[in-house]
Amino acid sequence: MTHQQLFERIKKKRSFLCIGLDTDLSKIPPHLLSYQDPIFEFNKRIIDATHDLCVAYKPNIAFYESRGFEGWLALEKTVQHIPDTILKLADAKRGDIGNTSRMYAMGFFNKMNFDAITLSPYMGSDSVLPYLQFENKWVVLLALTSNVGAEDLQYLKTENGMLFESVLRVGKEWGSIDNTMFVVGATKARLMKKVRKIVPDHFLLVPGVGAQGGSLEAVAKNGLNDKCGLLVNSSRGIIYASKGEDFAEAARAEALLMQQQMENILDEAGL
Amino acid sequence: MTHQQLFERIKKKRSFLCIGLDTDLSKIPPHLLSYQDPIFEFNKRIIDATHDLCVAYKPNIAFYESRGFEGWLALEKTVQHIPDTILKLADAKRGDIGNTSRMYAMGFFNKMNFDAITLSPYMGSDSVLPYLQFENKWVVLLALTSNVGAEDLQYLKTENGMLFESVLRVGKEWGSIDNTMFVVGATKARLMKKVRKIVPDHFLLVPGVGAQGGSLEAVAKNGLNDKCGLLVNSSRGIIYASKGEDFAEAARAEALLMQQQMENILDEAGL
Repeated sequence: MTHQQLFERIKKKRSFLCIGLDTDLSKIPPHLLSYQDPIFEFNKRIIDATHDLCVAYKPNIAFYESRGFEGWLALEKTVQHIPDTILKLADAKRGDIGNTSRMYAMGFFNKMNFDAITLSPYMGSDSVLPYLQFENKWVVLLALTSNVGAEDLQYLKTENGMLFESVLRVGKEWGSIDNTMFVVGATKARLMKKVRKIVPDHFLLVPGVGAQGGSLEAVAKNGLNDKCGLLVNSSRGIIYASKGEDFAEAARAEALLMQQQMENILDEAGL
Repeated sequence: MTHQQLFERIKKKRSFLCIGLDTDLSKIPPHLLSYQDPIFEFNKRIIDATHDLCVAYKPNIAFYESRGFEGWLALEKTVQHIPDTILKLADAKRGDIGNTSRMYAMGFFNKMNFDAITLSPYMGSDSVLPYLQFENKWVVLLALTSNVGAEDLQYLKTENGMLFESVLRVGKEWGSIDNTMFVVGATKARLMKKVRKIVPDHFLLVPGVGAQGGSLEAVAKNGLNDKCGLLVNSSRGIIYASKGEDFAEAARAEALLMQQQMENILDEAGL
């Protein structure tokens, strides 16, 4: 999927919503626990109920990995269940040396059929370039994350701006707008103008709306560009909207609220 | 395992060797491919042949993850096969927000029974603190990595020294010498004196000896402290010493060479 193709899907669906599949056995409706694979059963129903409202799904790999190989199996089945027209984004935050990065890339892109993966930039170019050799696949580099601890290092003043600005300047040279996005937390919306000065055209993956307190309006105001340029993620706020048997309908209702806000934003921007 | 207990094991075994289990189906002896689980079969024989010569094993998780849930199963069996007196270190380079970090920690520390995990520091304190709440477990923070791309960001001048120095200064405050180590690549031995000025007492995990070109002598000269303070890793140089049926004996011979060099270094330092 190219930058332009992603923009076309956003325009068609009137949505730039990414739904985070952070599926936790202790939070899903208890009646699902009797199924043979409760995690997949939950994901399947969430996907079936929301796929017309979003342009991406983002399983956070931690939630699967923490369950060992059973979790891994649930993840593989989940990815297979996501329609091909929707971006499948592995929130893995990997980052390793070249020969190892290639192994991760093969695992996520070829074996698991993900379209995109989040990566930590700390180890530099040769930890990222192996992923960029896969055609039609994306890397999503952490730049300015949504958590409190982000300030410990990402705000450091460097010879090249704050550290997250250095990451944007260095990272945008490794690929192109057709294979690279950056993570910029919704909780850091006031810094998004600085981000857009450095990467005006790239897509940004924006977590932190909803449970983490970020505002969709502030994100759109500071981050929207003429190809939308935003994928806004919500995880817990959507998938855990209800713990009852109506969980999938409740998730759809929350996703629909976000999609409608996004439609208004796109309409107002003439996109 | 505390800092002191790790030092005692190093003194007893006359070795500070960590063996990296970067097990790749395309590199293991072909005769193993007929086994039901070739990766575990390889690891088991490497462990059986070398466990008296090292104090840690470090599977790089990429090599297992890239094989999906089958790889994950091979990893679980491998960890179970490592004797309890040897540090089991997951080279995972994770780093995520708090609730997610806790999921990773539970997966690696509780479900998989690893003693230690490598983490990327980029997301800051709340991405690391959840791991430090597990008793007798270690985090190993990336500081100065062994790869070429390390220079892209880790050498940046910041208000607080080079970026890797900032990471050491910030990261050492999150835990103690009993639960925190730092990764410092053997290929960066000339910078190890700078590292030791900031973290004189912490253990350092040192990859990059062997296939990546780092020198054990230079590492010891600049990094050894009065409790050894070093875990030096070799992966490919040991485990792929032979592709024949003698691969385990060949791995043992390479590990023995390193252990003997380490014994000399410890003897000379009076440890």
